[in-house]
Amino acid sequence: MTRAFNFCAGPAALPTAVLERAQQEMADWQGKGLSIMEMSHRSKEFVSVAEKAEQDLRDLMQIPDNYKVLFMQGGASSQFSMIPMNLLRGKGKADYICTGQWSKKAIAEAKRYCDVNIAATTEANNFTSAPSQDELTLSADAAYVHYCPNETIGGVKFDYIPDTGDVPLVADYSSAILSEDIDVSRFGMIYAGAQKNIGPAGLCVVIIREDLLADADAMLAGTPTMFSYKVAADNGSMYNTPPTYSWYLSGLVFEWLKQQGGVAAIADINRRKAQKLYDFIDGSDFYANPVAKHNRSIMNVPFTLKDAALDKTFLAESEAAGLLNLAGHRSVGGMRASIYNAVPEAGVDALIQFMAEFAAKSS
Amino acid sequence: MTRAFNFCAGPAALPTAVLERAQQEMADWQGKGLSIMEMSHRSKEFVSVAEKAEQDLRDLMQIPDNYKVLFMQGGASSQFSMIPMNLLRGKGKADYICTGQWSKKAIAEAKRYCDVNIAATTEANNFTSAPSQDELTLSADAAYVHYCPNETIGGVKFDYIPDTGDVPLVADYSSAILSEDIDVSRFGMIYAGAQKNIGPAGLCVVIIREDLLADADAMLAGTPTMFSYKVAADNGSMYNTPPTYSWYLSGLVFEWLKQQGGVAAIADINRRKAQKLYDFIDGSDFYANPVAKHNRSIMNVPFTLKDAALDKTFLAESEAAGLLNLAGHRSVGGMRASIYNAVPEAGVDALIQFMAEFAAKSS
Repeated sequence: MTRAFNFCAGPAALPTAVLERAQQEMADWQGKGLSIMEMSHRSKEFVSVAEKAEQDLRDLMQIPDNYKVLFMQGGASSQFSMIPMNLLRGKGKADYICTGQWSKKAIAEAKRYCDVNIAATTEANNFTSAPSQDELTLSADAAYVHYCPNETIGGVKFDYIPDTGDVPLVADYSSAILSEDIDVSRFGMIYAGAQKNIGPAGLCVVIIREDLLADADAMLAGTPTMFSYKVAADNGSMYNTPPTYSWYLSGLVFEWLKQQGGVAAIADINRRKAQKLYDFIDGSDFYANPVAKHNRSIMNVPFTLKDAALDKTFLAESEAAGLLNLAGHRSVGGMRASIYNAVPEAGVDALIQFMAEFAAKSS
Repeated sequence: MTRAFNFCAGPAALPTAVLERAQQEMADWQGKGLSIMEMSHRSKEFVSVAEKAEQDLRDLMQIPDNYKVLFMQGGASSQFSMIPMNLLRGKGKADYICTGQWSKKAIAEAKRYCDVNIAATTEANNFTSAPSQDELTLSADAAYVHYCPNETIGGVKFDYIPDTGDVPLVADYSSAILSEDIDVSRFGMIYAGAQKNIGPAGLCVVIIREDLLADADAMLAGTPTMFSYKVAADNGSMYNTPPTYSWYLSGLVFEWLKQQGGVAAIADINRRKAQKLYDFIDGSDFYANPVAKHNRSIMNVPFTLKDAALDKTFLAESEAAGLLNLAGHRSVGGMRASIYNAVPEAGVDALIQFMAEFAAKSS
């Protein structure tokens, strides 16, 4: 088996060790004679797997006891509706910070449920920075403030956590969760689609402060029962059958991350990987990254070639060299290297070497 | 590796051949150097997997061209809201047939969105039969008629497809899809949580007649975008990242089913498996099944022991004999053998032998 280096933005690379463990256990989990995916979600075996996954995530992120951890379905895109449905709680307005395509999607969906105040937008500079705290126009009567700390497509990262006073802060951490330490206590709610730093697609982790779990009568009329955070929390994320295999695989990733030394240790590696790549890009006159330096993502590194006519050749040759999925998002073009936790430093080294050689022969 | 016989109602047994294939491809799909779950859902590799899965399902079920096949998230429980949200289309009423716990759940959720006319209920006989066509009180002004052709918990099966005239018929086929031939053209919509006869939990297959795909303005106000069948259909079930690995595994199950000779061939085996087990139960004075004979499920076979005090011993000894997950649903107790497509006939034979021996020594 030869494993390529995979820079896909999502569904993204998983640790080879996790896949090998899953492979070994695939048809016979711990000698039980069946796969973990063939077990009832209410079996003691699966419940132990599920509880360990939650506890490991709590340990890794140091999640305070007054937060619930939910394992939900429907991706971050379902959260875009669930958030206003659950968190408006009688108010008619929410603040949204707009820093890219994912912010825009969240905003478009929220507008169907409430007045959205755009607390700041960086669309004027083509989403190549994040606004500073001073630039946020927050509403005193907002039910919550929503933002995306790391925009996967633009590769833009907030270098601070917005101060929203008593208004709950809600963050779409899909592409940056577990990449660096997060002070969870600063947030009302954090959510993340699994398919970047957690596990396979089809699972969405929600971390929510208990006082924000709305009762049925506090939710928007017509909210589907499956969209209620309180119902999910009251049922241990098993109101219906959860995506058990995705939950199991995510648990293996959490275990692997603990073995790497936890979030602080992986964050050191992540920052080193990103720094190398940005340094190389900045030192080149062939490649460019448009993002303000203090807002550069350490997970998603978009870059352009001097001549876009070379993009196709770059992609074909990088793929042939075992460096996969470097095309930028279809909405923006160019290149993007997503260097999540599971992409080893050797992958970044190999990418830089390839980029240097490609530039040399193409210049 | 020793594989046990797994009678779990869901997440349920998968074909051993499918698990072995998935195991082999886990960390390196077809020599590409990465797992299928690490690939973009928009990659040509995954799209080919997704399209083949859909085509195989279309072939297996002979789905007419004017039906869309959707691969969705959130389980059948999310469908309980999606159905009224999408299918009411300006009407205020829907007919529901009530034949068990899953019907009741669908009804409870629908009541949050419209007037529900209970076209028939068998609650009076403790859900041990299905109503006949004559017993259905259908409304002329209903937006649709909903029923559950096979109730997983009670083991009750309709032995006919209700005639609803021009009113679209909607069926929760979660526990019976692909078990026998279904005339899809009789239905407005069929849906099925994957975790019984299709694949792992976290995927829900929806088969819907194209004229029922409601535009945004025909849906109930506030319907989440992720709950729109039309949005899912217009985006090839990729409005957001779908549960790619579950989709892939389901495709492997469809391929396996074709190799078995398709639905007609597996249906013969299914009917034989069920007949054996029911014949044994009926011929015993130790075991009993309460369901009307013409309504007995060929997928889920609930049964009781003469003395419920023996239940615990029965479950412990059957487990020790490699016959797993025979406990009835927590809401009803007793025993239940779910004998889906992936449970081999040898499993049913082994179960009957165990049951005979247990009865002999316990009588």
